Amino acid sequence: MMQPLPGFRDFLPADCTARNYIFSKWREVARRYSFAEWDGPVLEPTELYQKKSGNEIVGQLFNFVDKGEREVALRPELTPTLARVVAAHEREFKKPLKWFSIGQFFRYEKQQRGRLREHFQLNCDIVGETDFSADIELIALCIDILRAFGLTEKDFVVRISDREFWTDFLRQQKLPGERWEEVLQTIDKSEREPREKTAEKLGDLADPILSILQEGGRSEKLDRLVDGLGARDLAQFVDIDVRIVRGLAYYTGTVFEVFDRAGKLRAIAGGGRYDNLIGQLSDGAVSLPALGFAMGDVVLSELIRDRVAAREKMEAAARNEQKIDIYMVIAKEERRADALAQTQEFRENGYRVDYPLTPTKVAKQFQAAEDLGATIAILYGDEWPQVKIKTLATREEKLIDRASLRGSIRELVSV
Amino acid sequence: MMQPLPGFRDFLPADCTARNYIFSKWREVARRYSFAEWDGPVLEPTELYQKKSGNEIVGQLFNFVDKGEREVALRPELTPTLARVVAAHEREFKKPLKWFSIGQFFRYEKQQRGRLREHFQLNCDIVGETDFSADIELIALCIDILRAFGLTEKDFVVRISDREFWTDFLRQQKLPGERWEEVLQTIDKSEREPREKTAEKLGDLADPILSILQEGGRSEKLDRLVDGLGARDLAQFVDIDVRIVRGLAYYTGTVFEVFDRAGKLRAIAGGGRYDNLIGQLSDGAVSLPALGFAMGDVVLSELIRDRVAAREKMEAAARNEQKIDIYMVIAKEERRADALAQTQEFRENGYRVDYPLTPTKVAKQFQAAEDLGATIAILYGDEWPQVKIKTLATREEKLIDRASLRGSIRELVSV
Repeated sequence: MMQPLPGFRDFLPADCTARNYIFSKWREVARRYSFAEWDGPVLEPTELYQKKSGNEIVGQLFNFVDKGEREVALRPELTPTLARVVAAHEREFKKPLKWFSIGQFFRYEKQQRGRLREHFQLNCDIVGETDFSADIELIALCIDILRAFGLTEKDFVVRISDREFWTDFLRQQKLPGERWEEVLQTIDKSEREPREKTAEKLGDLADPILSILQEGGRSEKLDRLVDGLGARDLAQFVDIDVRIVRGLAYYTGTVFEVFDRAGKLRAIAGGGRYDNLIGQLSDGAVSLPALGFAMGDVVLSELIRDRVAAREKMEAAARNEQKIDIYMVIAKEERRADALAQTQEFRENGYRVDYPLTPTKVAKQFQAAEDLGATIAILYGDEWPQVKIKTLATREEKLIDRASLRGSIRELVSV
Repeated sequence: MMQPLPGFRDFLPADCTARNYIFSKWREVARRYSFAEWDGPVLEPTELYQKKSGNEIVGQLFNFVDKGEREVALRPELTPTLARVVAAHEREFKKPLKWFSIGQFFRYEKQQRGRLREHFQLNCDIVGETDFSADIELIALCIDILRAFGLTEKDFVVRISDREFWTDFLRQQKLPGERWEEVLQTIDKSEREPREKTAEKLGDLADPILSILQEGGRSEKLDRLVDGLGARDLAQFVDIDVRIVRGLAYYTGTVFEVFDRAGKLRAIAGGGRYDNLIGQLSDGAVSLPALGFAMGDVVLSELIRDRVAAREKMEAAARNEQKIDIYMVIAKEERRADALAQTQEFRENGYRVDYPLTPTKVAKQFQAAEDLGATIAILYGDEWPQVKIKTLATREEKLIDRASLRGSIRELVSV
């Protein structure tokens, strides 16, 4: 029997419902923040990623040569596409742009917990605004999205940092600019590596950097960020933490990553400012400051399933998505045509309706009604031209003339 | 400046809104028919398609060898994945399954109008039911989906046929079974090829087949299909047309394709019965009858944009998706903190709210409110602790004490 490829998921109906729940919350909160939805292609020229994303990502691409001899890759992230699209269309839109996107992304890497070869990701970006208010708006959005899932400050924390904190420091230390990226990558990895290894890689800079990492760095800018979130009553969701640098080379200012408070999972979301990327990708034709974050579905799902309140909220939404309104019980086959004509009318009025495709025992039909989560069953049988309506939750039954069926249903089921 | 790959689309916000509209109608009507949503991976082993889909599709695959030396392909269609998933999980579900899926599919082929290298597709399938009632249910669903877009019997027609009509005929003609597929493919192409070429390919069978194609074939089964749709008041949407055979080799019984009545566009949707495919793909482990159809977004969009009523319906839905509820006009920067705290509260209550990230002239802020389709603007200025609420459609203004803001908003904007 054939299997899906390693690292790729099949979404059976229950999985798909969970996925739809996540997508709908993402979309709902992004729209509340007045972000507009957009999307790019899942396949892009490999060059788009080679150009600017740093080496880590390029080694993990699903890339190949297509039948037209083009070097192409399944997208590993959205930001280079955003930069391409914004550079091409920037005159059509007033700035700042507030855009979000929900789509699938791919990396060819070793499978681990919370890390497949595909995942779905929300991307939210603000383009064309240098002001710090945009950083606050973006981080507030990230927090409010997680809160919409029923997650609280006990469940997750946004660790906020600033690349400029480090680049100012490296400038003071008179480190040549071409070595900055290497030092930043070492700081980024320092939490996952032994202290000795980090110290060795940092060389002369080991002492001052390790002491900052240990004592915690602060800056006036980071304090202002936290104050701005505090004005929205969101300060309890953030920690200043200069250990966060982000692996991608294109970040320039504020950077942040979201983790579960318990520290059991990989990052739930991450992002920051990338003020130079659009200019670089358009070879200087269009220069626009920008910032954004991405949140994947895999780690988020793990966290939701791990927290009782969030899990119950998801399960209630799932039941609601999957349930039908009306099951038509055809007790007498002579009534099938009547039941089907009524089914058609109900469906045209927006109700979710099912019925047995073939003659089926009445008890089995009621079981199907239960299994499908139907609110009511309508029995077409000996009572004709009356039908029996059964409310499944209460087991209440009543006989209704078929002519007054529509009005009775409106009282029992809302669409 | 970099471009998207040929045949791949960027979805700017207006395009994405149109796509969301199509997806939401697809989802809504499928749910009314009690179909459950599922999905498979966009990347599958190439073998899954080589095995059963006939040669036409394999030549058009986006296929490559991944870094683990696996032959893989971007999915060109969903049915083989459905067969794989159903065969693997069939014990977990009561039959018949009624499943739908919305996803992206890929073919490497020459670009033409209505034919890109990627498109989105709705797939609806019923698995585990041989009875003809399933064929009627599926075609009714296909029709009702198109009607939900505001399309009528003047806009589209479902051309219904039956492979058994032809296989019965070929059996009568004593044609060896191994030549059937070739004859069926010739009939499938006959509308797009000169009569002489079709005649030449059909050889001895040219005369009888061409006369059936000219006069129109009928069968008792096809008549029953139309009657079943007539009982749902849908007969005006279908024509019996035995020229329809469908290119894919796995179809076994009823087949149908949907076209615009004007005959200007490519097929809008197509499908049929494939009773043997699940058995074949599972090497006989699981044998289940099945039928389904697929509907793509590209040709459907063209038809919607071409028909006034359908286009206006889409545009109204698009405006509704894109609009915000409230724009916060910050006329005095001293009031920014108050406006932002109120923004946070409104958003938490489900309203879509925007405001200027930086100090901006009041006239420009009102323009932004108009551009974003805001229902109301709330002005924070000299009137504090009162604020001015302006309903943008009517230009009506009123002063409200900030304490009673929430109640006033509830009257003006519903979420």
